[in-house]
Amino acid sequence: MKLVEDGTITTPSGFSAAAVSCGLKSSGGLDLAIVHSPTDCSAAGVFTRNKVAAAPVIVDKDTLAGSSDRIRAVVINAGVANACTGPRGLAAARASQTLTAKAVDCLSDQVLVLSTGVIGVLLNIEKMAEGIAVAGMQLSPENGLAAARAIMTTDTQPKHLAARIELASGWVTLGGMAKGSGMIHPDMATMLAVLTTDAAVSPQDLDYVLRRSVDRSFHRISIDGDTSTNDTVLILANGASGIRVDERGALEMFAEGVEAVCGELARKIVRDGEGASKFITLVVSGARSEAEAVTVGRVIATSPLVKTAFAGGDPNWGRIVAAAGRSGVEFDPDRLALWVAAETGREIPVVRGGAPMEMDVSELSAIFKLPSFRVHLDLGEGRGEATVWTCDLTREYVSINADYHT
Amino acid sequence: MKLVEDGTITTPSGFSAAAVSCGLKSSGGLDLAIVHSPTDCSAAGVFTRNKVAAAPVIVDKDTLAGSSDRIRAVVINAGVANACTGPRGLAAARASQTLTAKAVDCLSDQVLVLSTGVIGVLLNIEKMAEGIAVAGMQLSPENGLAAARAIMTTDTQPKHLAARIELASGWVTLGGMAKGSGMIHPDMATMLAVLTTDAAVSPQDLDYVLRRSVDRSFHRISIDGDTSTNDTVLILANGASGIRVDERGALEMFAEGVEAVCGELARKIVRDGEGASKFITLVVSGARSEAEAVTVGRVIATSPLVKTAFAGGDPNWGRIVAAAGRSGVEFDPDRLALWVAAETGREIPVVRGGAPMEMDVSELSAIFKLPSFRVHLDLGEGRGEATVWTCDLTREYVSINADYHT
Repeated sequence: MKLVEDGTITTPSGFSAAAVSCGLKSSGGLDLAIVHSPTDCSAAGVFTRNKVAAAPVIVDKDTLAGSSDRIRAVVINAGVANACTGPRGLAAARASQTLTAKAVDCLSDQVLVLSTGVIGVLLNIEKMAEGIAVAGMQLSPENGLAAARAIMTTDTQPKHLAARIELASGWVTLGGMAKGSGMIHPDMATMLAVLTTDAAVSPQDLDYVLRRSVDRSFHRISIDGDTSTNDTVLILANGASGIRVDERGALEMFAEGVEAVCGELARKIVRDGEGASKFITLVVSGARSEAEAVTVGRVIATSPLVKTAFAGGDPNWGRIVAAAGRSGVEFDPDRLALWVAAETGREIPVVRGGAPMEMDVSELSAIFKLPSFRVHLDLGEGRGEATVWTCDLTREYVSINADYHT
Repeated sequence: MKLVEDGTITTPSGFSAAAVSCGLKSSGGLDLAIVHSPTDCSAAGVFTRNKVAAAPVIVDKDTLAGSSDRIRAVVINAGVANACTGPRGLAAARASQTLTAKAVDCLSDQVLVLSTGVIGVLLNIEKMAEGIAVAGMQLSPENGLAAARAIMTTDTQPKHLAARIELASGWVTLGGMAKGSGMIHPDMATMLAVLTTDAAVSPQDLDYVLRRSVDRSFHRISIDGDTSTNDTVLILANGASGIRVDERGALEMFAEGVEAVCGELARKIVRDGEGASKFITLVVSGARSEAEAVTVGRVIATSPLVKTAFAGGDPNWGRIVAAAGRSGVEFDPDRLALWVAAETGREIPVVRGGAPMEMDVSELSAIFKLPSFRVHLDLGEGRGEATVWTCDLTREYVSINADYHT
C-alpha cells in the first residue's frame, strides 16, 4: 500500500467533483460540493449515535437501507448543519437530494446528503438549488481538492489523501477527504468524511470494512467521535478499476488501506484541532480488553485538566493518572506505570508500581514542551491496548468557540 | 432553619479549630488546619470513587470503619495532595494522624486526615510535624474562618456558613467549610468539605444523611464530583447541644439542614470556579427518572462547547440540545423543549417539539450575557427532574490550569 499525500476523492478512476459558493457561509467561500460517479456505486456509512440526529443523517440512513448498491452522488454543504430543525429540516434535506439527482441525472434515492455548520438553522433551499445546479455543470476529476475545501468550517486546512493498494489481481485506488474543526470535541462540532474507491466491493463488505476502520481511527481521536448531530463517514465503491475485492485475503488488504486512509484523515483533524498547539499520541496498554484501553485513553484525551497541562507544557502527570482513575475501568493503582517520550524517542519512566520514579524533571519538561509527544500508560491488568490521538486545550480554543455563532 | 452566612465549623458548640502556615504552600500562606472536639463525635464521610484514591482517603475509610462513633479531630493540609505516592504516601498520612493525635491528646484512630494540592508529591512530614504541634496549641472556637482559609488552593475566597435548625426538642447548629478550585472539573481538582454539628446523631444516621445531601449538592455541580483522587466530605456530630436526633421527623429536618449547607457550599464553589465569569443553573425536567435528569444535566454542564458559548455570552442553544443528545439517555428528539431565563425572570421558549421557536434573538442574547441565568431543558419523557449548577469555560481557566504545577 502506498499513501498519496496530494491524492483526493477524485484520484480513484471514475469519480468527479465540483465545489461552488452558494452563499451559505457568510465569508462567501466555497460551501457546497458534489462528489459523483456516472455508474452505480456500492456505499456504506457510519453515522452519529447522538439522539438528536441531523436531518441529513436520517435521510442517508433511510437511503442506504434501500439503495446501498446503486449510489451515484453525495452533496455536501457547509455553514448550516440542518440539525434540530424538525419536519422542515427533513423536507429541506430531501429537497437537496432531489435537486442533486436532477443536476447529475440520477434518481433521488441514489444521492446521499451531508451538512455541517450551525445547529438549529434551516437550510436555505433557494441558495442550495442554485448551488447544486451550477455544481452539476462543473463536475470534473480535477475538483477533488476544491471539494475538500468546500466542506471546511473552522478548519484551517483541507484534509485529503489517497492510497494505492496492491492486490493479487492488480492495483485499486482509495481517496478520502474529511472536515473536522472543533475536534477537541468532535462529537459536537461535526466531523464529515467521504471515501471513494475504484475497487468493486459489495455493500455488505464495504459496511464491515468501514465500521472496523472508523472504530480504529475517527473513534480514537479525542472523545466520542460518534456522537454529534451530523457526524458521518461515507464510502463509495464504483468498481471502475475492474478489480473485484471479494475473497478474504483481498478484503483484508483493502481494509488495511481503508484503515490507513481513515487514520491519516483522523490525525489530520487532530493536528488542525481548534486552537491546538500540540499533537499527543496516547498509548494505553495492559488493559483487560481493547475496549477498556480505548475508554481510559478517551477519558485522558478529553480531560480539561490534562489538556490544559499539555497546553502549558507542564509535566503535571498526576492529572493523567487521576483521569485514568475516574474512567470507570477497573485496575489496581499499585500496578500503574507511565512513560513519556518524544514522538520517536525513548520512553522515560515516570511512574512504576503506582508511585513516582526518581527522575530528571527538566528532561520531562522538555518533552512536554515539544509540539508532539507520546504518553504511554500501562494498567498492568492484561493485554488490551489502544492508541488515541488528541491535542491540547488552549486559550485560543476558548476564543474560537466563545465567538462562533453570533 | 436559618442560614448564617458568616458561620463556620466552630459555630456549633464544642468545636474549636486552628490554622497555621507550615511551608507546604510556596506562597507561605496558611496551609494546615485542625478541627477539634474534646468529646467523641459520630462521624461519616463520602469519598472519591477514583481508582487512584489518595493516601488520606484510604486512611480515613479505614479509620471510619473502626471508630466512626468516637472521632475527635480532622487535620487538613493544602499544597500537596499525597495522591499517587505509594506506600511512602500512606505512611506519611498515618504519621500525620499520629502526630495530630499527640497534639490534641487522643488516639490515632480518632483523627481523620485530608490533603489537597499537587498529585504525585510526597507530604513533607517534618513540616507537617511542626505545623501540627503549633496548631495543637492554638485551638480556639474563634478560628473557624482561619481554617476555611487554610484549606484553599486556587480558591479566591474562603467558603463557609452555618445553619440553625429548629427541632421539636430545641435548636441544633450545623457548620460547614469547603474548598474547591478547579471546580469546572471538581473530579480532578479536589473538593474538600467538613461539616460539624452539636446535634447528637448516630454514625449510621449521619452516614445516610450525608450521602443523600452530597448526592443533591456536591454531586450536582459540574461533572462527577465523586471521582478525584482526594475528594472528601466529612461530617462530625459531637452532641454538645444535648439534643438527640434519632426519630424520623427530627432526622428529616436535620437532613434538610445538611442538604441546605452542602448546597450553599457547592454553589459557592461554582461561583468561585477557576476563571468562571458566569453562574448557570441547569434544570432538566421530563426525564424518565431523576438519575437520567442528572446524567443529562452533567453532560451539558461539562460540554466544552456549551461552556465556551456561555463564556462568549453566545445564545448557541444548539450545543445544549446536542450535548443532551450524546448523554446516553433515551429520549425522542421531537419532544424536546428548551427555555432560558434570567435568574428570577420569566422563561423564554427557544425550542418546542424539537424545532426552534420564532423568537427575539436580541432578548435571548441579553440573557446569555448576564452574570447568572437559568437554562431549562424538558425531555418530554416522564417526571424525573434535577438541577445542576455550573459555570462557563474561559481563557482564564486555561491560563490557570496551564500554569499551575511547575
